[in-house]
Amino acid sequence: MATLQLASWATNLTFADLTPLVIEAAVNSIYNWAGCAIGGYAQDAPHIAQITMQPFFGGPPTSSILGSNGSISEGYADAQLAAFLNGIASHVDDYDDTHLETIIHPTGVVASALLAVAEWKGPVTGEDFLTAFVAGVEAECKLGLSVTPEHYDVGWHITSTVGSIGASVAVGKLIGLDVAQMQNAIGVASTQVVGMQEFFGSMTKSFHVGRAAQGGMLGALLAKNNYTSSLQALEAKYGWLHVVSTRENATAYFDQLGHIWEIEKNTFKPFPCGIVLHPTIDAATQLHNESIEQGKDIASIKSINLQVNSEVLVLTGKTSPKTGLEGKFSVYHAAAVGILYGEATPTYFTDEVVTNATVVEFRKKVNVVTDDKRFSKDQATMTIEFEDGSTLEKHIEHAIGSLENPLTEAQLQKKFIDQVSKRIGDTRAEKADAAFKGIGNMTDVGQLRTLY
Amino acid sequence: MATLQLASWATNLTFADLTPLVIEAAVNSIYNWAGCAIGGYAQDAPHIAQITMQPFFGGPPTSSILGSNGSISEGYADAQLAAFLNGIASHVDDYDDTHLETIIHPTGVVASALLAVAEWKGPVTGEDFLTAFVAGVEAECKLGLSVTPEHYDVGWHITSTVGSIGASVAVGKLIGLDVAQMQNAIGVASTQVVGMQEFFGSMTKSFHVGRAAQGGMLGALLAKNNYTSSLQALEAKYGWLHVVSTRENATAYFDQLGHIWEIEKNTFKPFPCGIVLHPTIDAATQLHNESIEQGKDIASIKSINLQVNSEVLVLTGKTSPKTGLEGKFSVYHAAAVGILYGEATPTYFTDEVVTNATVVEFRKKVNVVTDDKRFSKDQATMTIEFEDGSTLEKHIEHAIGSLENPLTEAQLQKKFIDQVSKRIGDTRAEKADAAFKGIGNMTDVGQLRTLY
Repeated sequence: MATLQLASWATNLTFADLTPLVIEAAVNSIYNWAGCAIGGYAQDAPHIAQITMQPFFGGPPTSSILGSNGSISEGYADAQLAAFLNGIASHVDDYDDTHLETIIHPTGVVASALLAVAEWKGPVTGEDFLTAFVAGVEAECKLGLSVTPEHYDVGWHITSTVGSIGASVAVGKLIGLDVAQMQNAIGVASTQVVGMQEFFGSMTKSFHVGRAAQGGMLGALLAKNNYTSSLQALEAKYGWLHVVSTRENATAYFDQLGHIWEIEKNTFKPFPCGIVLHPTIDAATQLHNESIEQGKDIASIKSINLQVNSEVLVLTGKTSPKTGLEGKFSVYHAAAVGILYGEATPTYFTDEVVTNATVVEFRKKVNVVTDDKRFSKDQATMTIEFEDGSTLEKHIEHAIGSLENPLTEAQLQKKFIDQVSKRIGDTRAEKADAAFKGIGNMTDVGQLRTLY
Repeated sequence: MATLQLASWATNLTFADLTPLVIEAAVNSIYNWAGCAIGGYAQDAPHIAQITMQPFFGGPPTSSILGSNGSISEGYADAQLAAFLNGIASHVDDYDDTHLETIIHPTGVVASALLAVAEWKGPVTGEDFLTAFVAGVEAECKLGLSVTPEHYDVGWHITSTVGSIGASVAVGKLIGLDVAQMQNAIGVASTQVVGMQEFFGSMTKSFHVGRAAQGGMLGALLAKNNYTSSLQALEAKYGWLHVVSTRENATAYFDQLGHIWEIEKNTFKPFPCGIVLHPTIDAATQLHNESIEQGKDIASIKSINLQVNSEVLVLTGKTSPKTGLEGKFSVYHAAAVGILYGEATPTYFTDEVVTNATVVEFRKKVNVVTDDKRFSKDQATMTIEFEDGSTLEKHIEHAIGSLENPLTEAQLQKKFIDQVSKRIGDTRAEKADAAFKGIGNMTDVGQLRTLY
């Protein structure tokens, strides 16, 4: 039943079903994703991926590689390669978005697949694009909720494992699959389970997003051509839910489809690193500012004591990161740069900063105590002690970027402009800002790339 | 340790380490795979896959699509697409090979990736090709043994889940990865877990093999370009072994690498369907012949009573298959055609035969009783009762095609020639027979395709 239920809902969804809040959340999600994909393209991971895949892919260059800095003609690839690269680039900085209940970063896989297909198969209106996007995000998040927390706890990277199914639904919606084809698309997507947590802190983490975007897209395209799969891929005894989770509650969540919108709960990361580090960085940057205000010398800090939820050490317990990507999964690094510099933008998660002697020394001052009774995942208390014995303390009740304390529109825009201008310059960044914000009103989303 | 152990063994393996029996088993495995890939290309699954992927892949056509019937120039694609299509085609008839302890069909994923890369990156000698092939097969089978039976029992299609890791090792060996790169290749391959049993009986089953070939190849190629992953992808807490299995015993099996050769235990399918059906078909075809010899009328058979291991119903319990692919997972269909026609070649697993009225009626006469105490997976007892009350019975102690009762060289050759001549004609089939049997002596495996 679950597969049919999801496929039916998605194929029947129309733009008119989307509430204003849903549309706003969807546009913001795509906007934030685009900034990440453009900014993240500067990293090594998407470049190595591009060099590696280039010998294979040479179909008509229909789809944008968002962060390519050259002429527009150089910035296109076929839809599979574009989805792969935009998926990697949008996630490699760990700066994208988060559905906090499931820790899914929902836009990367779905939008990377969807934009590539929209450009290839277009013209696609902004309304149709958003409708398909929302269908994909709702599918992956409801499915994620139905297996949370067991699926994540065993070690799966839920962003990509449910993401490919979301991408198959989104692309399937865009290319007009009927219900049975949509079930088959979900089938092909769900039998490709990509992503484990062991790869956090390496380039393979963002590979998950790119590969899941390809796999989900492939599911929809194969189903369109009547490739056969299963009509009960999710709920069957040897299907997705039972194989990858000890918890299965899909129909309960699918019953909420169109009533409770998960896209409205999407949040945008203020810091480019594992989400559980955000309360720590929030505390650290505030304590940096207070220290300066009080005329204290940051260099004279003797110890940094941190109380957090135990997930912080499980996911981000790397004590001696060696690369920028590893730094994104080190609470010690995050606390150190927050205290030292009062900010934690992508600049502070490079190989150079991670191996900087001052930073390395400061990381050693960080002590972490976990207490799950007192600290939820978006909470932290940090106490810094100076050589003169004085202390400063900061408790974070809800980290910046959380649902209770979201980025303001201005903060989201600053993040976008910072990411994008570094890749393609200030002028084009301003144009990209307007282009992606206006996506819902376009008559052909394929024209996006020509607007900036 | 496990990842390092496997990577070290594979990178150090040389052709001189291979025993004559290992080489013979490897050549036979590749030979049988080629027959399947050429014959299976006639199916819908590889054709839909090709049509679907064609818009993307247009890199230099370096690698063979084995079953393409046109001119040689039309039979090539880039290495990723060739691996995908040969993987699908070689498995779609369920006629390939089986490592019985694990139920892995070992050659499809590994050879599909390896041949495509050998043709692209060559010249590669036959000895180097076989060495890399054996490294990949040993890797996947040892890994499979270490998670058997728990990994399969939960619903994974072990052929593709371990196959992509085998392919990464084989391709990594061929392109000369060092140990750390090999560990990274294993990492990228292992985070892509493709294949669940729910898709048995649909085109998605063979998709698993093609997709795993692509994913494993991609792991090796990315690692060569220094894409980072994990050096302990298999054994880490949130790595492959713990995430996909409740059993983890990899180092015990890796300790046997190079001492106990899994390739020597590879068997070749006499019938194009799920391996657990083979004892049933063996009994049915023998009973057909005995009935004829005794002048009995097959049409007057009243009932067909079958005693088998319970896995037969778990994996192949479809009572009313509707397509040829579903027929391959129906013990009722297998028993019916075996009794009716005295053989069970690919001809008897088409949509036409599966929906034929006589066959449908005969399927209803089949009663299955399971008894795990008396019947292992390669055993069966069949009793047929005629309208006159007389009965005939046949017990199969080891099904034809099993390790104890393997196909003879002549039977293996007949299977190959039957598959291949149907696709590319008798003359080319004879040449292909010689070409693939001689693969070990070639100075450039890339010339294979020009020999037939």
